[in-house]
Amino acid sequence: MADAMWLTEEAVDAAARGRVFCVDNAGAEDASSLRLRSEIVEFMKRPLVSDPSEADVVLRIGYADAGLDGGEAFRIRRAGTSAESIVIEGNTAVAALYGLYAWIRRTATGEGVPEGPEGYASVPQQAMRMIDHWDQVDGSVERGYAGESIFFGDLDSNDHTDFRDFPERPGRDPFRGDMARIESYARLLASVGINAIALNNVNVRGRAAELMVQPLLGRVARIARVFSGFGIKLFLAINFAAPKKLGGLDTADPLDPAVRAWWSGVIDGIYNAIPDFGGFLVKADAEGEPGPMQYGRDHKDGANMLAEPMARHGGAVIWRAFVYNCRQDWRDRTTDRAKAAFENFAPLDGQFADNVILQVKFGPMDFQVREPLTPLIGTLEHTNLMVEFQITAEYLGHQIDVNYVLPQWLRVANFDTAAPAELLGQAGDARVKAIVPRLSPNPSCSGYAGVANVGMDDNWTGNKLAQANLYGFGRMCWDGEATAESILDEWLALTFPQAGAAALEAIRGIMLTSNQTYENYCAPLGVGFMVVPGLHYGVSVNGYEYDRWGTYHFADRDGMGVDRTVATGSGYTAQYRPENAAMYEGLDTTPDELLLFFHHVPYGHVLHSGKTVIQHIYDTHFAGVEAVDGYIRAWDGVRGSIGEDDWANVAERLQRQRENAVAWRDQINTYFHRMSGVDDEHGRTIYA
Amino acid sequence: MADAMWLTEEAVDAAARGRVFCVDNAGAEDASSLRLRSEIVEFMKRPLVSDPSEADVVLRIGYADAGLDGGEAFRIRRAGTSAESIVIEGNTAVAALYGLYAWIRRTATGEGVPEGPEGYASVPQQAMRMIDHWDQVDGSVERGYAGESIFFGDLDSNDHTDFRDFPERPGRDPFRGDMARIESYARLLASVGINAIALNNVNVRGRAAELMVQPLLGRVARIARVFSGFGIKLFLAINFAAPKKLGGLDTADPLDPAVRAWWSGVIDGIYNAIPDFGGFLVKADAEGEPGPMQYGRDHKDGANMLAEPMARHGGAVIWRAFVYNCRQDWRDRTTDRAKAAFENFAPLDGQFADNVILQVKFGPMDFQVREPLTPLIGTLEHTNLMVEFQITAEYLGHQIDVNYVLPQWLRVANFDTAAPAELLGQAGDARVKAIVPRLSPNPSCSGYAGVANVGMDDNWTGNKLAQANLYGFGRMCWDGEATAESILDEWLALTFPQAGAAALEAIRGIMLTSNQTYENYCAPLGVGFMVVPGLHYGVSVNGYEYDRWGTYHFADRDGMGVDRTVATGSGYTAQYRPENAAMYEGLDTTPDELLLFFHHVPYGHVLHSGKTVIQHIYDTHFAGVEAVDGYIRAWDGVRGSIGEDDWANVAERLQRQRENAVAWRDQINTYFHRMSGVDDEHGRTIYA
Repeated sequence: MADAMWLTEEAVDAAARGRVFCVDNAGAEDASSLRLRSEIVEFMKRPLVSDPSEADVVLRIGYADAGLDGGEAFRIRRAGTSAESIVIEGNTAVAALYGLYAWIRRTATGEGVPEGPEGYASVPQQAMRMIDHWDQVDGSVERGYAGESIFFGDLDSNDHTDFRDFPERPGRDPFRGDMARIESYARLLASVGINAIALNNVNVRGRAAELMVQPLLGRVARIARVFSGFGIKLFLAINFAAPKKLGGLDTADPLDPAVRAWWSGVIDGIYNAIPDFGGFLVKADAEGEPGPMQYGRDHKDGANMLAEPMARHGGAVIWRAFVYNCRQDWRDRTTDRAKAAFENFAPLDGQFADNVILQVKFGPMDFQVREPLTPLIGTLEHTNLMVEFQITAEYLGHQIDVNYVLPQWLRVANFDTAAPAELLGQAGDARVKAIVPRLSPNPSCSGYAGVANVGMDDNWTGNKLAQANLYGFGRMCWDGEATAESILDEWLALTFPQAGAAALEAIRGIMLTSNQTYENYCAPLGVGFMVVPGLHYGVSVNGYEYDRWGTYHFADRDGMGVDRTVATGSGYTAQYRPENAAMYEGLDTTPDELLLFFHHVPYGHVLHSGKTVIQHIYDTHFAGVEAVDGYIRAWDGVRGSIGEDDWANVAERLQRQRENAVAWRDQINTYFHRMSGVDDEHGRTIYA
Repeated sequence: MADAMWLTEEAVDAAARGRVFCVDNAGAEDASSLRLRSEIVEFMKRPLVSDPSEADVVLRIGYADAGLDGGEAFRIRRAGTSAESIVIEGNTAVAALYGLYAWIRRTATGEGVPEGPEGYASVPQQAMRMIDHWDQVDGSVERGYAGESIFFGDLDSNDHTDFRDFPERPGRDPFRGDMARIESYARLLASVGINAIALNNVNVRGRAAELMVQPLLGRVARIARVFSGFGIKLFLAINFAAPKKLGGLDTADPLDPAVRAWWSGVIDGIYNAIPDFGGFLVKADAEGEPGPMQYGRDHKDGANMLAEPMARHGGAVIWRAFVYNCRQDWRDRTTDRAKAAFENFAPLDGQFADNVILQVKFGPMDFQVREPLTPLIGTLEHTNLMVEFQITAEYLGHQIDVNYVLPQWLRVANFDTAAPAELLGQAGDARVKAIVPRLSPNPSCSGYAGVANVGMDDNWTGNKLAQANLYGFGRMCWDGEATAESILDEWLALTFPQAGAAALEAIRGIMLTSNQTYENYCAPLGVGFMVVPGLHYGVSVNGYEYDRWGTYHFADRDGMGVDRTVATGSGYTAQYRPENAAMYEGLDTTPDELLLFFHHVPYGHVLHSGKTVIQHIYDTHFAGVEAVDGYIRAWDGVRGSIGEDDWANVAERLQRQRENAVAWRDQINTYFHRMSGVDDEHGRTIYA
């Protein structure tokens, strides 16, 4: 029996206990209205009546008088003046479903339902709120840290995670077939507003390429139907070479008529099986994956070729912008991986079809704990955009280390791109969260995507506290006003409804500081990738320094950091809008925490904080371990206030986190002490 | 059809063509005399007659008048005065077999058969001349670079090498069953005097533990019979925990009577199936393998327990001395892995049974391109010793890079241990090759072992030129006077009989310098382990620097090297006999090439060569690549003089070697330039 995550029985009952429900549907029944009824009767185990006057909670669907925009917005209001009887309304059943979960949430947090006819109304900020699974048909999950895939693999098995080899097992049924778990998952996603999911890894290996055709497509359709009721559209990651691999053609050239006809037929076949299919997710010409470049075409040619037949069915093509030279030579100082996405895609702005979406990682590198915003966001003016986040903790501690990542993500979402006023409309808001829909020509094809962090582990996410990142990702997508604190408080109230205030405060204290703590003992001042190659957990200062991935710190005996200025470096800063370009170009105006991302400085350089770079490195690395020690003490105090399994799960991982933090502290401090020769001002132990 | 290696048809025919053979056996026929007859008729395809007077070549076995000592010495002499008719004689058929192969060799080299009744007589220097296979029952070879195991795996398959995961495949037949290849291999080994072989990896995983019992034992026996005819005794590596794993006992305590009885029964069973079984090879209490220590016993208890029943059958127990703390903490400067073997085994000197052999790696670390001799050799006075060499090129270029290793091995064999005169007898020789039999209480239980470098690749060794290391290992074991040059000349004459003098000189020039070239672009001045962790190919300066394996260079901005002196360091130097201890303790008396193994010095320290340490690093790393460039040019000149397949094999690998040498050069030079800040005196390119 899998963990209920934030939809605990206590939280659900707190809202629903003793209530009688009615679904008052002005329109026709659909998959979501049936699901809504089932949620009341089978999930919440409450009576459902047909006469609204007999119900305490009326789910009112499709009445124009609600005055709601679009198919997802909902309102929760009191029926008349009674605090006991409420109405949840929306233009669609999915909207009512969102309202139902919101009502449970607001009951748990004590926010409740405001008085007055407006009640609590909510409209999602991002149109597409998507989860990308990097699940593979052998049951493994690339960069997964919570057990095997929930979609693929053998029933009940949960053996391995994060495989990189891909065993071909011809003839084997790749589907796990655990439909109960998939239903639970779909409910959890819908409860935080997720409305799209990509089923399989963007590196489409082996039989994964066949998911889009029969016979595997039939099994995909069965999964899609579960998600469909919850308002979640299913996407498939595809292999651009499929016309050759599956179609028997001798080319996958996107301008070849036979290739176009083949894809068109495949897409028609998918919609025959999955009428509300979302579309394709494509990693092309990146890290060894096939793509249009090998035929002398460009990304636009590849994406638009797929988008044309997709458009006939209302589908979309999500094209990943994670394209860079992964055969870089560390000796070559003229190439800067940070520049790659902009260089590849800025020239194509305005050339993509209306149903193509460019999915851009939030930073220019790869999901490090500290990166600036990618310069593509706020500079592309005619391209549908999705921002890609990574919920799975590839570079953030593998769900061993506690790392509540919402503070980091919301820094991204709230970053001011400095896009010019004439592009912003009345709101005048150039922050990422506003600019993404604003600058997407087809705003319904824009939003956020997050790489899933779940697997077959009992608690879904390995570390119990990592559930908060999945929760928070959905909430961040929906609610533009949410803060890291407000989201965490919601999650705590829902997840640990029986915990007392002291315990909740202790957990809150750990989680709210955890991302900064991880940064403290990990990458200093915007340097990333000092990790064990391949694994991406644990410290290896030079693990990537002499490698082909374009991820360097350039530390020598005098100083460290990557000069990305126009004046003396790679010129990356010029990719930003002028205000931000000037900020990062200037040594004095660059924020401390990104200093080494933009500048190469001596170890004695004095930060705005007043510390030297080398002393900052020592201080943060000692502080990181001290913080983890504090977490361990605080967590000891939580024992007994939450379920023992959850407590023990986190307690065990905190010990491993401490080992990790100590390894980081000692290796980073020793490495830079050996390099710089500068002693710690406070005389703490730095090993020779 | 596998490569004939040095037993080429041309080389064999040069001796045997037109000859009539006779086996004149004074004793009873045995497996080896039958094999000898078969070698003449089936391998050499020559007529075999029963009347010596009708033969040109008489193999004379078991006649006391030959005046030879022991069962392996042979003599080749002219019959009367004729250079055409010869006699090859020995006390046993195996000795005659050795003489037969020696005659082929001496014909190929032009050395021929000296005049006079003494002819050419030869007696092996080392009693045990053994090949250790690290082959695993899944067909993989740990640290193998020439394809799958020739013993295990599926018939004709050759998919993978050097796996570290071990897939259990219950029920599968682990044996490859390619008896023709095993026979060829046994012939090649016998032709260079090998007389013992360990069939399986010392890390005894999965079903490998079952090789010593039925049903797998029956299959092992079939292989043993092939080797037996060639005078090669078969050994098995065993898992010390077998009484628990296989025997159903709840302990493997070597002093437990039930454990002792169990092993005794197993050993009786083995000899029932393999009457001339050699014995066990044991890696215990090392790198995670089980052993007696977990029961509070010591190595002597474990080894002697096995030796007792083994002695009843004439078998031996080879106990590996490769024991160290592989969970060391890089922060702990008090532990020195180099000291471990001596610390573990010196106190046990004299306590091992007469048929126990301690197998000691030649250096204190692990088969690096430059290490001092292990201090166990020449200091143990009452323990049977075998010196372990590694023919497979784990740290020497993976049989991609050309690396003829005999110059390095013979440096070891000829190293003067400075053992005191009273131990040396009349010969007064304290060099390794003399001291090993001399100080072994039971000299027949002493010798050299080499880890095999062969696999299912067509040419057996991946790189054609790596065959010379297998050849040379055997020759070094047998012939105490052989030099790296003489061995190479033999191998060249046998292997490339059709090549002209210019081509042979070109190949000779490459191979004789190749070990030094590898050292040049790899480890400077006795520092090792700057390799990619796990893989052990390619450069990673800090790959092991902050790890648990005890292999550090301690480079900082001021200097580098490991202080192992008594005065200021780990005290390792004290493990040597006084003369050598004094040599290594002194900064001025330590040879340049081992300086950083024994001392931590500033980059500006001036070597005996007159260069500073840092300039030496730069110079050797530039020189390494230049040498490889020279090899490539020289190899181009060889084209057409040897078989095109062999030429192309090496040509392709030379290109990869160049990439490796360049990577080493640039990363080492940049790393130490970043560290030291010292520029190259000659202004060559060192990347920032």
